[in-house]
Amino acid sequence: MPTVAMIGGGQLARMTHQAAIALGQRLRVLAASADEPAALVTPDVVLGSHDDLDDLRRVAAGAVAVTFDHEGVPTDLLHALVAEGVNVLPPPEALIHAQDKSVMRRRLSEMGLPVPDFVDLDGPDAEATLRDFFARHDGRVVLKAIRGGYDGRGVWMPDDLDDAVAVLTRSVADGTPLLAEARVAMRRELSAMVARSPFGQGAVWPVVETVQRNGQCAVVIAPAPDLSDELATQAQTIALRLANELGVVGVMAVELFETQDGHLSINELAMRPHNSGHWSMDGAVTGQFEQHLRAVLDYPLGDTRARAEVTVMANILGADSAPEMSMDERCHHLMARMPDARVHLYAKGERPERKIGHVNIVGAPGDDVAAVRERAERAAHWMSTAVWTDGWDEHGRE
Amino acid sequence: MPTVAMIGGGQLARMTHQAAIALGQRLRVLAASADEPAALVTPDVVLGSHDDLDDLRRVAAGAVAVTFDHEGVPTDLLHALVAEGVNVLPPPEALIHAQDKSVMRRRLSEMGLPVPDFVDLDGPDAEATLRDFFARHDGRVVLKAIRGGYDGRGVWMPDDLDDAVAVLTRSVADGTPLLAEARVAMRRELSAMVARSPFGQGAVWPVVETVQRNGQCAVVIAPAPDLSDELATQAQTIALRLANELGVVGVMAVELFETQDGHLSINELAMRPHNSGHWSMDGAVTGQFEQHLRAVLDYPLGDTRARAEVTVMANILGADSAPEMSMDERCHHLMARMPDARVHLYAKGERPERKIGHVNIVGAPGDDVAAVRERAERAAHWMSTAVWTDGWDEHGRE
Repeated sequence: MPTVAMIGGGQLARMTHQAAIALGQRLRVLAASADEPAALVTPDVVLGSHDDLDDLRRVAAGAVAVTFDHEGVPTDLLHALVAEGVNVLPPPEALIHAQDKSVMRRRLSEMGLPVPDFVDLDGPDAEATLRDFFARHDGRVVLKAIRGGYDGRGVWMPDDLDDAVAVLTRSVADGTPLLAEARVAMRRELSAMVARSPFGQGAVWPVVETVQRNGQCAVVIAPAPDLSDELATQAQTIALRLANELGVVGVMAVELFETQDGHLSINELAMRPHNSGHWSMDGAVTGQFEQHLRAVLDYPLGDTRARAEVTVMANILGADSAPEMSMDERCHHLMARMPDARVHLYAKGERPERKIGHVNIVGAPGDDVAAVRERAERAAHWMSTAVWTDGWDEHGRE
Repeated sequence: MPTVAMIGGGQLARMTHQAAIALGQRLRVLAASADEPAALVTPDVVLGSHDDLDDLRRVAAGAVAVTFDHEGVPTDLLHALVAEGVNVLPPPEALIHAQDKSVMRRRLSEMGLPVPDFVDLDGPDAEATLRDFFARHDGRVVLKAIRGGYDGRGVWMPDDLDDAVAVLTRSVADGTPLLAEARVAMRRELSAMVARSPFGQGAVWPVVETVQRNGQCAVVIAPAPDLSDELATQAQTIALRLANELGVVGVMAVELFETQDGHLSINELAMRPHNSGHWSMDGAVTGQFEQHLRAVLDYPLGDTRARAEVTVMANILGADSAPEMSMDERCHHLMARMPDARVHLYAKGERPERKIGHVNIVGAPGDDVAAVRERAERAAHWMSTAVWTDGWDEHGRE
């Protein structure tokens, strides 16, 4: 059976290996160190760096495809691999839209897709451009690093013009190019996950609602509650069209805003398994990790139907101070209280706000969405902090 | 997080590793060679033999528990490990009932559980005992190796007394002790899977129907269609009682006959994840591999409810002559035809009748059991032989 190589040894690669096992395969990973989440669980590990061409060549050797658990590989190295005959998926021409927000914004605008007004802040006129854009949008502006931002890093919400100029000045000094976007008056955030194979088959999962805290995904509700059929179809159509026109291979998350006036606005693209797709591991017929493999292997895609009326995913984050109770013991108490909780742990050290696992709660028929969400969030909070949000005493002491 | 060690590197260990990944762990396996199914997918492999005490010690070192993917470890070695402080689960005193059919039969009889009439065929009077037993049961007798039989090996259905005596003579010459059992006039075969933790918690899955071909499990229908509530509860009660009274830790399959007159008769015990539990990977809230880990870790057990009205598992067996079409290409065509099929491949060489994978089809609400079974069997037959049983042309040629 074929071998797929994944650049990056994080939790996305770890869970992709889990899916590879069922397909009679194993995942090869390029990991920075032997204790990364994926390197701990697959024997096929190449230790090296994602920005070293020789390391990339080593992990690609003999693999039918090279794919990614992050968007950090420099574009020139990807082109070099392709020139040497490596099957890089998604291809660099597609991946650039998930790496470079300026390229993405321009392309989506040209396609006539709903994006906020934006402007690149580069060159000697950058500050003048920012001042003008800021005035034009009554200060409702967000600044973003064009490359490299994720999970709230590389995104700034300036309080006023002075603050905005200060962010720009710092980033010019750091050599981090920025763009400015108009802030969207949003009702909530959505994600439309799609997969596409080289053959051209596309498949979308139900559109989900994502809840962000401190700039990163905290909770996902699948499918998005009370989303109109019209907006759901619109979001899925955007995802399928983008996957096709950009030439994506693998899974892609299209992160969207549902605006207060009932429209969609595209926020970000991610061309890899994505936090907003973790619910699918337990809540869909085919999970995103298997689907990503199927796509890069050019297998026919799997059925993306939801298996329940509602599934809620909540991230387990490292607490501000790691609890004294071990993760093992926390797991014990969670299982005692919620025998149906689906726990996914990444074997990562606990640092504040770091994603170290997630919990899926799959609702039973007729379950109330809010109740399922409450259980998922309670479970994740417990696993983070060893504190039950409702005061439950896990030892039943009086 | 704790490390569990499993003796044996087969598909059961492979799928247990998949489950371990979600729990933030990885499975350590004792494998005979580096190309065994589990050794291919976990980095924590000890190469060695399950009947070498030093190898057993090496795999046990630092693990919180040692458990099994087969019942082949000699009892004296397990007792030696226990004497050295190793946490062997299930304990040898329980495991013996899955290793030695004579011990099992006697114990179950003493417990008053429904078992067929049986007799040990040992000592100088073995042939006389067999002749007597054969006459008493009008020739409706089955002969079984007391130790080491599985998947149809070590079981004989003699046509007549001469045949039975010939089997006995051969086995005496081989040094393989036998017992004789009365054949049960059965309607069908069932399996009641149960898990038990050291804490004493027990949990049963829905009782399933198993379909055997050539002495090994071919198809499992979960839950068993048209099984009366009374028999289902009886089977589950037997499984829970056995798990408790034998001191089982981990999962156990209680293989049963449903007799033509509507009773149960216990056939075999297996104290490990079992073929009759593979459906649970996709069809139950908690699958048997995660449950086995939860039990040996003394975690609270997971919810065993079925997630669908019907799930059917069909084994993929090596064909009489391996098809020219590669497994990779067969997988491709299966996915094209059945996007909802859940495929589990073991990365084993294809030899006739060898279990090399399985397919689960999870029915949608209202699906007909026979139709779901037909799809599962068709999928598995295709994966075995590259032939569709209904003449489907995968390339759509006219």
